[in-house]
Formats: sequence, structure tokens, C-alpha cells
Amino acid sequence: MSERLNIDKVDFTKLDGLICAIAQDYRSKEILMVAFMNREALEITVKTGRAVYFSRSRGKLWHKGEESGNYQDVKEILIDCDQDAIVLLVDQIGGAACHTGMNTCFYRRINRSGEFEDTGKIPLFDPAQVYKK
Amino acid sequence: MSERLNIDKVDFTKLDGLICAIAQDYRSKEILMVAFMNREALEITVKTGRAVYFSRSRGKLWHKGEESGNYQDVKEILIDCDQDAIVLLVDQIGGAACHTGMNTCFYRRINRSGEFEDTGKIPLFDPAQVYKK
Repeated sequence: MSERLNIDKVDFTKLDGLICAIAQDYRSKEILMVAFMNREALEITVKTGRAVYFSRSRGKLWHKGEESGNYQDVKEILIDCDQDAIVLLVDQIGGAACHTGMNTCFYRRINRSGEFEDTGKIPLFDPAQVYKK
Repeated sequence: MSERLNIDKVDFTKLDGLICAIAQDYRSKEILMVAFMNREALEITVKTGRAVYFSRSRGKLWHKGEESGNYQDVKEILIDCDQDAIVLLVDQIGGAACHTGMNTCFYRRINRSGEFEDTGKIPLFDPAQVYKK
């Protein structure tokens, strides 16, 4: 790496202004969720150390945890070879990243027959209590 | 989960026919790469247990390892809450997932100043020897 690179080199062109952002538990290394960031979300995340994504469905910044209180404190940000995806190693406050109350959004597997199976996880909170709207 | 779900429920609509696919080392839990799959790539991957992606740049199926020999044997496929992203727990043949020769595509971090830093990894192969075109 002779070239000095920085955040300006992140490539937002491939997904119409977004990059793929994977949140991974910094202790267990379990993958918690995958979402997207625009440039502003990445800048805020880098600067503040708290994960901010871009919600495609709502068309705006999504401060993860703003409703549930389940913020993600970012321990490390990794970037991939072609600079269009990142991994956030996070401390998931409250223990659950998923809106279902599961610790991870990836709580099911696809088996060899193409069927979905539970992996045996149980919810850590009741979504009806946490999201009251 | 009272509803029985299967591969037909995977949601390819949000990324123009693609889903996000994350490859994770099944032993170390290190995230190796992120790529995309169309429906055909997912079906082949589920059926054969070997990772096949869809290359956006080449516009066709990408049998991971077809050039390098570094195939990915899939141990488990996890799917997320809204069925638009998967995690592949893989045995990375040859040890290196990245075209740079690194074990992972995520071999750099972004520090708090927004600069890229090496994480101290070293290549496991010489790309010039592996990709001879």
C-alpha cells in the first residue's frame, strides 16, 4: 500500500450512492445484520463511533437504535478491496440487532432442500413493547 | 414460525434481481467477502454446496474459484429477517478469498480520522501467478 487512501476513496457508485455495511459482533464475531450507508451515514459513523445507516424504505438516515435504544457502538470499521463494502465490528447495546427481538437478523438457515429452518434462537425482547407506534 | 417458508420467498426485488451474500469463514467467523447473487446463483449454491455469485461487472454467474481454484465449500446458509440477504458459512479452499491474495477482502480499516490503515495481513498467494490473463 504505497498510496495513502481515505474515506474519499469509498466507492458509492455501484449501488446508486450506497455501500453495503455489515454489522458483526466484535466479541462473538456473529454477523448481526446487513444494511446500507450513503456517504453522510458513513461519515457520521466514522466520526461518532455509533452506527448510522441509510434506510432505503424510508429514504433517510437511520440512526440504529433511535427507537429501540439498541444502539451499536462501533469498535472497528473494515473496508474491502474495491472499497464498496464495509464491516462494522460493534458492541450491540441491548444484545439484539433485529427488529424481531433476535440477537441477529440471520436467525434462520436455508437447508439443502431450499426450505427455511429455525436455528433455535429465541427473542431477547418483545417487539410490541419496544416499537410502540 | 408457523409459516413454512422456502427459497421462493427470497426477496430479489430490492436490488434489481439480486441479494447481498456475505461469505464468512465457518471456523474463525472472519468475514471474507461480500458479493451478490441472482436467483439462479442462489439455487445452484443451495443445490451444490459450492458458492456461486452473480458478477455485476461481468453480468453473469461467477463460480467463485473458477480461475484461482479457491472454491468455497458452503457449510451453512443463513437468511435474514426480511429475506433479502444471506450469510454463507464457508470453508475457503486455499485459504484466500480475495483476488489480492489476502485471506479476506476486508484487510484494511478506516480509522477515526477517515484514513485507511492496513490491519497487518499478508497475501497468501501472488495474484500475478494465479490470474494469468
